[in-house]
Formats: sequence, structure tokens, C-alpha cells
Amino acid sequence: MEKVNLREKLSTFRDYFSPRIVGELNGQQVKLVKFQGEFIWHHHDHEDELFYVVKGSFDMHMRDKTITVNAGEFLIMPHGVEHKPVAKEEVEIMLFEPATTLNTGDVENEMTVKNLEKI
Amino acid sequence: MEKVNLREKLSTFRDYFSPRIVGELNGQQVKLVKFQGEFIWHHHDHEDELFYVVKGSFDMHMRDKTITVNAGEFLIMPHGVEHKPVAKEEVEIMLFEPATTLNTGDVENEMTVKNLEKI
Repeated sequence: MEKVNLREKLSTFRDYFSPRIVGELNGQQVKLVKFQGEFIWHHHDHEDELFYVVKGSFDMHMRDKTITVNAGEFLIMPHGVEHKPVAKEEVEIMLFEPATTLNTGDVENEMTVKNLEKI
Repeated sequence: MEKVNLREKLSTFRDYFSPRIVGELNGQQVKLVKFQGEFIWHHHDHEDELFYVVKGSFDMHMRDKTITVNAGEFLIMPHGVEHKPVAKEEVEIMLFEPATTLNTGDVENEMTVKNLEKI
């Protein structure tokens, strides 16, 4: 058993939209991800997702509204709801979601990451 | 759907060892708790728990070692492992754990909190 320092783990990678696994519990995973720019519209049929902003901010676009999430805030995206994360500048996020969650949800394309690295 | 600002939620209560629920997803809950001093030795038969330090630091005592967890760090306590959180000064923590988790685990005493407030 070891504690995890978010800043330290985040310093080990620089690529965008490629979540790393930093913890597992109760069938859920804790992931860290960095990104800048636009992700794709998608939803998750079964998984709710928590986005906690460690550094920076991002806009979570939904079909009917957009919510800006800043450092020290989190947003829970319920399963079934279409969403698209967008960040004007680099943002660092901690995700908490079931181990079964695919980053692009119902979509599979060049942004899909299937085998996540554990760091 | 609303985002949650940790600092804002933490400013709404002052009592120790009394977790508040600030989010729910996938049968798990996100809780915020403040404490100073010693909690009790306990374990959870089925639930793993994640302790993320928002502010301050605390010592997680286990029977064979102690791990100090500082702001920006988390520790995952696997089910079945006896532990006792201790903080010399006030610490603010975000917990991720199954909705079934009782704060005192296998022990029930005056520190047990059964009906957690949602804030």
C-alpha cells in the first residue's frame, strides 16, 4: 500500500486525452488525464463519471448547457448523458469511474484508448 | 446536474468526524470530512476507502506501519485492513467509498454516524 501524490504522478506524462490509472478500489478506477482542446461527443451507457479538476479549468458541453469546472471543483456526469469536454488551456483532471469505462464511451475512433497504463 | 466546489462545501460545517455526502455515482459516494485528533481502530469487511487530503495532513495508522498523507495526496485503504486516522491539526478530506460504508466499520460506538447529511 502506497499513497499517491497527484502532482508527482502528473509530472510523469505530457500527452493529452490519454488517461493513466493511479488507483483501484471497489471495481472503480482513479485516473489522471491532461488535455487541451476539444474531445468528442460521446456518452457511457452504464457508467457515471466524476471529473475533479486538479489544475486549470475546462468546459463540459452537454446538449442543453455547458458547465465550466475549475480547479478544486468536480462534476459528476451521469450515464446516458451526451457530453464533450473542451479546454482552452491545458487542464489536469482526476477521474473516478468504473474500471469498465472506455474514454470515448459509445464511440470508437482514433481517440479511443483501450489499454491504459498504470503509473 | 451541478458542479461541486470543495472549499465552498467545506465552509458549511465545522464539526469533526462527521462526513457529509457531496456526490453519488455507481453505488459509490463522495464525502467530505474534517477532523482533528484520534479516530478509533476499525476495518471495513467489504469496502475499500479512498482518502484524498484537500487541506492539512493526517497519519493513517495501521497495525504494521503508519503513512502520513498530505494535501494533494490520496491513500486507498483496502477492505479488511485495520486502520486508525489521526491528525495533530485540523485536516480536510474527500472520501470515495461505497454507499454502504459505515464510518466506524466493524465497530459501533458514540463515533458512529449512520445518517449522513447531503450538502
